[in-house]
Amino acid sequence: MTDATIDERRFRDRFDEFNEIGATDAGGVNRPSLSDENKRARDLLVEWFRDAGLEVRIDEMGNIFGRREGRDPEADAVLFGSHVDSQYNGGRYDGVVGVLSALEVVEAFDDAGIETDRPLEIVAWSNEEGVRFQPDMLGSGVYTGVFDLEYAYDREDKDGNRFGDELERIGYKGEEPCEPDDLHCYFEVHVEQGPFLERADLSVGVVEGVFGFSWMNVAFEGQANHAGPTPMNMRHDAFVATADVTKAVREITATEGTDLVGTVGSVDVWPNAINVIPERVEFTLDFRSYDNAVVDAALERIQDEIEWAAEREGLEYEFEEIMRVDADPFDDECIETVAQAAEDAGCEYTRLVSGAGHDANYLNKITPTSMIFAPSVDGISHRESEYTEWEDVVTGAEVLLRAVNEQAST
Amino acid sequence: MTDATIDERRFRDRFDEFNEIGATDAGGVNRPSLSDENKRARDLLVEWFRDAGLEVRIDEMGNIFGRREGRDPEADAVLFGSHVDSQYNGGRYDGVVGVLSALEVVEAFDDAGIETDRPLEIVAWSNEEGVRFQPDMLGSGVYTGVFDLEYAYDREDKDGNRFGDELERIGYKGEEPCEPDDLHCYFEVHVEQGPFLERADLSVGVVEGVFGFSWMNVAFEGQANHAGPTPMNMRHDAFVATADVTKAVREITATEGTDLVGTVGSVDVWPNAINVIPERVEFTLDFRSYDNAVVDAALERIQDEIEWAAEREGLEYEFEEIMRVDADPFDDECIETVAQAAEDAGCEYTRLVSGAGHDANYLNKITPTSMIFAPSVDGISHRESEYTEWEDVVTGAEVLLRAVNEQAST
Repeated sequence: MTDATIDERRFRDRFDEFNEIGATDAGGVNRPSLSDENKRARDLLVEWFRDAGLEVRIDEMGNIFGRREGRDPEADAVLFGSHVDSQYNGGRYDGVVGVLSALEVVEAFDDAGIETDRPLEIVAWSNEEGVRFQPDMLGSGVYTGVFDLEYAYDREDKDGNRFGDELERIGYKGEEPCEPDDLHCYFEVHVEQGPFLERADLSVGVVEGVFGFSWMNVAFEGQANHAGPTPMNMRHDAFVATADVTKAVREITATEGTDLVGTVGSVDVWPNAINVIPERVEFTLDFRSYDNAVVDAALERIQDEIEWAAEREGLEYEFEEIMRVDADPFDDECIETVAQAAEDAGCEYTRLVSGAGHDANYLNKITPTSMIFAPSVDGISHRESEYTEWEDVVTGAEVLLRAVNEQAST
Repeated sequence: MTDATIDERRFRDRFDEFNEIGATDAGGVNRPSLSDENKRARDLLVEWFRDAGLEVRIDEMGNIFGRREGRDPEADAVLFGSHVDSQYNGGRYDGVVGVLSALEVVEAFDDAGIETDRPLEIVAWSNEEGVRFQPDMLGSGVYTGVFDLEYAYDREDKDGNRFGDELERIGYKGEEPCEPDDLHCYFEVHVEQGPFLERADLSVGVVEGVFGFSWMNVAFEGQANHAGPTPMNMRHDAFVATADVTKAVREITATEGTDLVGTVGSVDVWPNAINVIPERVEFTLDFRSYDNAVVDAALERIQDEIEWAAEREGLEYEFEEIMRVDADPFDDECIETVAQAAEDAGCEYTRLVSGAGHDANYLNKITPTSMIFAPSVDGISHRESEYTEWEDVVTGAEVLLRAVNEQAST
């Protein structure tokens, strides 16, 4: 238990001021990674970190840390935060809620005159969204050793701008090495980006882990004949086969008793003309489950469907798994800490698993980790209409405060 | 009957020389409308027309005419020809066969010392393909009053170049008004662009008319949520509905006893990202039949399918018919003339209907018309691998010669 508490008014004022940066007419924000708007958001964050008396460090990846020392200078730190880059025309909550909650938690300790045993570090990771520079979670990925620094610097946006050059341009290529501090554990508050909490009328999700997923590139190649004189039974239509596989994804995900989700998200057609039979289609598949065996089974079955669609339509085909991430259970003790914090905060909560990836996934590789989800209204995310009730945002920060307090004293 | 005959060697030499212009490595040609290569092809054609003693006229649309006077200067002319613009990286036969056959026919009359009663006119129409400037068949369309001249001049390619400006740039904006001469009839030799003749082992198709068709633009609009945390039963996936409609097109075209063909040719997906549920898809539908009622029925049924797919998936939808052309039977007497010419030439032929549009469709609106098809190997067209056996090209020209001779004497 702790006497510290979130200052709701200050939190709200900061949230609103922060989201003026890159604000869009439709109520969202446009602050993609390393854009001018992202720089302005970073500048304001660093100013607030300094105002709160934190020792600010910016590492080679532009990850921004703010440190508050504890009673024991030798102790491993409790790290918590999220990210402030956005989707193109994204929402006001994704990432921002986690970083500003973290700032509120250290200020709440200050207000209550509480010194923790362990040092506290708050963080804003670079390039979580992955919309301008792929892959996503690049800042936490380098920090945790998943990616090399040079690999990250060489990522290019669609105009050919390098991540490293853009980082330097906005003045956030720091001197500090991008490598793990001595950490005790990691927490992250984030909006759920799905509908479960709102549907169940709960205000907090205690996140037990993250879905595994497989990403595939698939291509069908047929013949681009004229749509008029080519009889139906002589066609080699790459798009009809793509439609077959898309319907098969829906069938596979309807298999009884699994949590599998599947998506055909990106589709490109050649020559893409109204009167020409599609010669080539390239498309993507995304399968996710908390059970790795379920993803394996989906992959096996969809490959059969691809082969069968190609055979029936008389096509060549290629498929390649381009990314595979196993399901990732978080640390039992951190999960229990968050659950107890939710109990102590007196809120209605449930334990759940995240379908989306977060910086916490990478942190979980190097230190005990868990997450706190706040409900997303209608499950909407990555869009300007993304919304979370303000009282739920505050509740998430209160739970974070209690979880941090607990772990910072052990 | 006539003593005139095609000079196979001269025809072949011209065909090969002509197709050196814009030749591609893969054996095709790249001479899109009003390109530099199209200009060089036009220049060579005009030179050959003049060498053959034809009176050359270039009209305001860049249509190129070559006239050989007949015994009766007051008589209406027999017009025949095709086009010399190509698809981007298209084939060597589409259009070229018709124009060079026409030139061979007048030279064959010269060689045999034959003077016809009626004047003969041969023609190369501008912008038949419609790949650089839409719509297709623009030159014959203005000539027959389907389009206004100013409308045609204002067509722009994807770089914003106006048709009228490009026509002037290559020096083919002629002085002659683009309006019908006094015509007796029109013939056109063309490659079939479908597989029927080759499959039936025939060398000539007597074309009785052209399929009608409907073109539609369809759009589905759903919600672009994250592919991970969004359960399958809460999705509003615009691409899944597109797959449903695509499968429905296949089902509708399988209806017993109709000649209906249907194609989803162009598909664009937003935001088109591997991990985002497709929010919006815009796609096209192309339905064709020689029976207008069959096209009507297909339209009605596909609209039901679109509505049902949108309802089940929870989407908004739009559909719009952007072009409708009725089936177009050619002139009975011209059809019989071509059939008799095929008999006289001693070749194996059949009567058939064209699934594709041609300049002949527009000419048919103002003068009795028919066409002569040469077999397309594997039915392939609009691609570099387009191929017609040379003996079949020659046979097509022999049939044209006899048809022209017959009509030029009546």
